[in-house]
Order: sequence, then structure tokens, then C-alpha cells
Amino acid sequence: MTQLTRRNLLGSAVAASAATALSPFGIAPAQAAAPPVGKQAPGFYRYKVGSIEVTAVTDGLRPTALADNFVRNASKEALHAAVAAGYEDPTKASFPFTPIVVNTGPKLVVIDTGLGPATFQQSKGALGQFQTNLAASGIDPKAVDIVIISHFHGDHINGLVGADNKPLFENAEVMVPAPEWSFWMDDGNLSRAPEAMKGAFNNARRVFGALGNKVTRYEGGKELTPGISSVATPGHTPGHTSYVISSGSATVMVQVDVTAGPALLFVRNPDWQAAFDVDGPKAVETRRKLYDQVVADKMLLQGFHFPFPSVGRLEKDGAGYRWVPAPWNPTI
Amino acid sequence: MTQLTRRNLLGSAVAASAATALSPFGIAPAQAAAPPVGKQAPGFYRYKVGSIEVTAVTDGLRPTALADNFVRNASKEALHAAVAAGYEDPTKASFPFTPIVVNTGPKLVVIDTGLGPATFQQSKGALGQFQTNLAASGIDPKAVDIVIISHFHGDHINGLVGADNKPLFENAEVMVPAPEWSFWMDDGNLSRAPEAMKGAFNNARRVFGALGNKVTRYEGGKELTPGISSVATPGHTPGHTSYVISSGSATVMVQVDVTAGPALLFVRNPDWQAAFDVDGPKAVETRRKLYDQVVADKMLLQGFHFPFPSVGRLEKDGAGYRWVPAPWNPTI
Repeated sequence: MTQLTRRNLLGSAVAASAATALSPFGIAPAQAAAPPVGKQAPGFYRYKVGSIEVTAVTDGLRPTALADNFVRNASKEALHAAVAAGYEDPTKASFPFTPIVVNTGPKLVVIDTGLGPATFQQSKGALGQFQTNLAASGIDPKAVDIVIISHFHGDHINGLVGADNKPLFENAEVMVPAPEWSFWMDDGNLSRAPEAMKGAFNNARRVFGALGNKVTRYEGGKELTPGISSVATPGHTPGHTSYVISSGSATVMVQVDVTAGPALLFVRNPDWQAAFDVDGPKAVETRRKLYDQVVADKMLLQGFHFPFPSVGRLEKDGAGYRWVPAPWNPTI
Repeated sequence: MTQLTRRNLLGSAVAASAATALSPFGIAPAQAAAPPVGKQAPGFYRYKVGSIEVTAVTDGLRPTALADNFVRNASKEALHAAVAAGYEDPTKASFPFTPIVVNTGPKLVVIDTGLGPATFQQSKGALGQFQTNLAASGIDPKAVDIVIISHFHGDHINGLVGADNKPLFENAEVMVPAPEWSFWMDDGNLSRAPEAMKGAFNNARRVFGALGNKVTRYEGGKELTPGISSVATPGHTPGHTSYVISSGSATVMVQVDVTAGPALLFVRNPDWQAAFDVDGPKAVETRRKLYDQVVADKMLLQGFHFPFPSVGRLEKDGAGYRWVPAPWNPTI
């Protein structure tokens, strides 16, 4: 195997003695060069959980310059090293967004809604792709019965309303975590919030105001509709909620933002607190508890900010965890 | 966080006290239940290597019952344990197939062609999807200038010809490894081959016969067309070839069948020899050499039998390696 050398691997000095010299039947196509297609595949992926059909739908991926204090309890150097370990660049680390649609049979349910149409327009289609990919996947927003919201950050709620400020899921009941509503819609909390958080308070008022504040509030540990149950996973925000989808013996844990960030930083470093966690220590406690259970049960996990299609398993890896994506199934 | 218990995680006994009890604005949609869509996303994925556009196209995934001697130098028990460690079932371990298309600018190049139209028909579209996914990706087989074949196993060459026995890439030059041609087309080798291998010899005659044996033979370590160079990686078959695609400083190693099998078995256990390797010890030597280089260079790797879209990186992991898929980019 003398040809497998660094020099050849890098293709830097390959001989120009064209292979066609060996050919007794060389063909020279006369056609013009084909232009690159330049278009990515539609961003959805479908899988079954028992009889339930789940469709993971990408809302896009945002290259994100990470602030030096992106992790509260890690140095800039440690942060950059961890991002590099994920083969990413701290100046443009990838931050994916993945809402899901769950067809339980009786109900068509959306869990979280992405960055919304304004971001779609601003980003020229790179972000806020949920509606376009939903359409590509063959799902009509008018047919959605329930939209479940996990927490009130903009990348989860902004896709509830269109650029015209009208509901995008016009026939759907919108279900929100009761403690999340209490926290973000409280005027006292808004007035006491640090300046950097006031935008999120006001954004929640804007979005839910557009719905006439018509929401159903739910608690953790409840069946929201047959096949989908809520699990309180506070820390990231006070009412942040995860979900178990189950049908027969099949289950998937929808972890939403139990970790949220690029390069699987908080999977690798579960004790790190993100700057945007409302309660960092609680977020860490929640993450450890949920992940240890998911690992013990070898449970499928669906992560909002994991690389699309964002479904896989977790394994213990030293002091942290390792993400193992489920193999893509080209059929369903 | 008292709600995060095993009982709630599994959704086995969630209270039926519906969350709607909390709702002041419950909405009861009158529409009928939406049927499941039941259709997977088109199976292609596009990325850039410098100015070159690569399209990974799935040919399907075959659930495979692994023979007890699927690995020559491992016990049935060790094999089953390794498959289980990949969250797969040895009675239906997933065996994906992923040809790629490379648009170098001047040339539109296909590398390997999948299981072919006969398998597509027999499997009712579950396998042999290359042509349908190629169409979905916006690529016309008539526009393909070159088809590069890595080796002569059926899942790589059968897609060269249609059910009508006519070339599927009618305007393309077909390039094959010279040592592969010498091995499989030699009548002496056919007559001396064990019974289990004769099918592969005859299949190569069938496929290339349909092309009138009009092929261009190439050696390892050559530039096949600007941007694509061959790397001899023998063992799996005598003339098995890998490729380096490069443009500017960007490169990707196309490893084809340096490992071939489900659950990344030979990535985790690089010293294992597959029953279908023509020269098992040589395949192991090739794998170790190529992978150590790819790890050292943090080089992107495209694997024919890795889970779609089959592009990512390798890391050292104990005595073996670990596969780290590249994050899916929803744009290009």
C-alpha cells in the first residue's frame, strides 16, 4: 500500500499523467458543464414512535460568534477549546433549531415553532425555515390541532405568529407551561429584570398578545394529549418543559433546551451554565438528572438545538456525555 | 424538580387530569384527524468542498441479519455485543448505502452507483434509491460526465445499468480501478474462486458487458479529473480505491468500503476482518493507516456505508475509532 502516503492523501502533488492513458475506449462528452444545484434538501426527517409519526423539521442553523462569557462558569480558553473539540469555530459556531411535529393519530401536534417569519425574511431564508420545511414535509399548518410551547424564548415562540401578526396555526390550541406564563407575564418580574432580559419579557407579550392571550396553561407531569406527557425541566427558564412521546413500548424524550448551544458544549460539559440560563445551577441539576435517566434507559432523545435531525442517544463519557445520532432511515 | 422521576419519564402513569382544566380559553377544533404523511424526506444532502459541490445520495438502508461468522476473527458473542453497543439488533442491523455526486465545475462526477433498478423493484423502493433521490436532488444522469467505480461489489456497480440492461449514465465515461478489473475479469481467478465468490465475478461480467466493456482503467495515486484523486486502499477487494476531493485548502476523504458494515462495527473494532473482505489482514492494515492519517489531519470523511449523509470525522477511541457526524447544514 505504498500509495497511501500523506502526500497522496492531500492530493497536493498527484501525477498529472491522466488515467485516460490507460483507456482503450476514452469517451469525450461534448456537453456543457452542469452548473452546481446550490440547493439543500428539504429539512425534515420522519420516524415512528410506535404508531405515532414524528417529523423533525429544521428551522435553520445560525452561525454564532460566542461571547467570551457565553458559559458563566468556564473561561474563554476552556470554551474555545471545547468548541474546537467539536470541530467548530468560536466565531461562527453552529446553533441549530429543530421544532417537531407529532401526529398521535387523534391529534396533530407541533412542539415549539422556531424563529418565525420576520427572521426568515431578514436572513433571506437561512433561518425561520419551519413553515417552508413544514410545507415540504406535507403538513398543513391549518391541520395542526395543538401547539405545545416548551418555554418562552423567542426561538420557540416567535413562529406562532406571521409577519402580519396573525396566528400561523389558526386552528390550534396553544398550550404553555403554567410556571412559564407566571414568570414571563408578570409585570413585577419584568420591571425587576436585568436590561438584557427585558427583550424576552416584551417579546412574550408581543407574541401571546397577537393570540389574544388565548393559551391553555399546563403543569409538568401531565398527559397533555394521549401520547404526549410533560416533564418539568426547570433551570434554563423557570417553567422550561420537556416531553415524553410514547406509544406501546416505544418512547422518545423531547429534551428541548435542557442543553442549548452549539458543538454539543453542554453535553460534553454538563456542569457548565449558559449565560442565557435563568437559573444556571438548577439547569445543571436538571440536565444531570434527565441525562442519567436517559442513559440508563438507552432512551431515544430529541434535542431542539442538536444537529438536525436531532434524534439520537446519550452515553456517559468521562465526566460528561456523548451524543450518538440515530442512523438516518431512508424509508419510514 | 420532583416531577422528573422514572415514573413520569416513561409516561406510564401520568395523571389523566387534563391540562385543559387550567385553561380559560380552551379551543376544540372541529376538524378531522390529519392522517400520517408516511413519506420520508428525499434522501440527499449537499455540501461544499471549496468551490466543489458534493451531493451525498442515499441508495437506501438494508436491515441485515448478521451471520455468526460475519466477522472472521471475532466470536458471535463479541459481534452481537458490538452491534448492541451501536443500539442495533444483530437480526436486522442497518446497512446503509451512499453513493455521491461531485460537481467539480468542469465535470459532473458520480462515485459508485448503488444496488441498481432491479433491487429497487424487488424492495419496492426501499433499496436502490439512487436514481430517484438523484432526480429529487436536481441532478440529471444524462449530464454526468464521469462515473468513478471504487470496486466491483454489486452495491457499487449494479446502478450502472438499468432494468433494460442499458447504461443509466449514457453520456458518462466509466472509470474503474485497473487492479480491480484485472482481478475480477480474469477467467482463471473466476475458475479458482470459492463458490460464494463466483456470483460477484459473474455479476461484474454482466454489468460491464452491458457497457460493452467500455471502461477507462485507472491506478491509485492519480488525479482522475481536476479535484478528484485516487488513493489505493486494497484489502476489502484487491483494487479497492478511495478518493481525495480537494479544492483550495478544503478536502474530503471518500473512504468507500475501508469499513463496510452496520453499526460502525469496523470503526469501533478496526482489527476485525469482515467475511466479505477478499484479503482481511490487508483490509485491517489499510484501515489503520488511512484512519490514523484522517484523525491526525482532522480530515472530513465520506463513508459509503456510514449512516446517511455519511460525512463526518473520526477520533481515536481506545483501541478503535469513533465516528463523529458533521452537523447537518440546512443551507449550502
